[in-house]
Amino acid sequence: MEPERIEKARARAAEMLEAAGIALTDAERESMEVADLGLGELERQGVEIVVYVNNDRYCAKELVLFPRQTCPEHRHPRVGGDPGKMETFRVRWGKVRLCVPGEPAERPAARVPEGSEDCYTVFHEVELGPGDQYTIPPDTLHWFQAGREGAIVSEFSSPSRDETDVFTDPRIRRLPEE
Amino acid sequence: MEPERIEKARARAAEMLEAAGIALTDAERESMEVADLGLGELERQGVEIVVYVNNDRYCAKELVLFPRQTCPEHRHPRVGGDPGKMETFRVRWGKVRLCVPGEPAERPAARVPEGSEDCYTVFHEVELGPGDQYTIPPDTLHWFQAGREGAIVSEFSSPSRDETDVFTDPRIRRLPEE
Repeated sequence: MEPERIEKARARAAEMLEAAGIALTDAERESMEVADLGLGELERQGVEIVVYVNNDRYCAKELVLFPRQTCPEHRHPRVGGDPGKMETFRVRWGKVRLCVPGEPAERPAARVPEGSEDCYTVFHEVELGPGDQYTIPPDTLHWFQAGREGAIVSEFSSPSRDETDVFTDPRIRRLPEE
Repeated sequence: MEPERIEKARARAAEMLEAAGIALTDAERESMEVADLGLGELERQGVEIVVYVNNDRYCAKELVLFPRQTCPEHRHPRVGGDPGKMETFRVRWGKVRLCVPGEPAERPAARVPEGSEDCYTVFHEVELGPGDQYTIPPDTLHWFQAGREGAIVSEFSSPSRDETDVFTDPRIRRLPEE
């Protein structure tokens, strides 16, 4: 991504965090991750991430989603002695539709991003608003999409090893190329 | 503690959380822990706790401190294969003075609660405001006190085993008696 687009996305996400009363340090704002996952359509598929802490025992982040922005389907596989990252999503602001394996929603509110239909395979939908949370077991496919206003989600989890994430979309690169 | 005092403290803490834009479910509000630690002076020594998640891999809580309320000095010792709880405090609202081992503050802002002078032994002071955070290593003595407006602190950590906490004050009972 061009530095200019990254900066614009950071500013937009920082504004949403501020409006929700979530304080960041300058360093956190400047190092915020803007992940378009190599798809080149950030506003449709991507996520903005502030990592608060990620050590060998636990991890905590703030995830920002723009309106209708979708974090594409993926899972966190077993890596050595780690059975796979386990994570709890807690919505702080806005609405999120979280999709996991199970009975597909009869009337899904989340919409699969156009052109990526083959890359979404789980459709059991959980709707989460402020104060709601959901824990995703290790190695379980999931994807999530913000409602029309966007969303802010606190993620509490076991340690993050983003480079080992497995996305359903083979075009996705989790980390930007060096 | 009398049920009436607990209810009053819960309502007060819930009001602070709401004012800070932190949403709780009704169940979380009703099960909020009000810990006077058996000392019977909640407003001076104690803490209000909402546990979001506590599983065998990680834990996340919101801690509420009333103005000048102090969470007394304690540590999280090794338990079996666990080297002791490691925790990251992130201030969401208000100010906190966190005291840990090290060079004592020359002009401490935190005041040891009157009558409990013998039960506080570490005085290296870290002042934390909104967006600031600090990670406390396992098995390390610490205590913390809110500023004059109170404080809200997100705690991200390895699993919590409150019953094994070791407090410096021998009068303290971490969990209420059954």
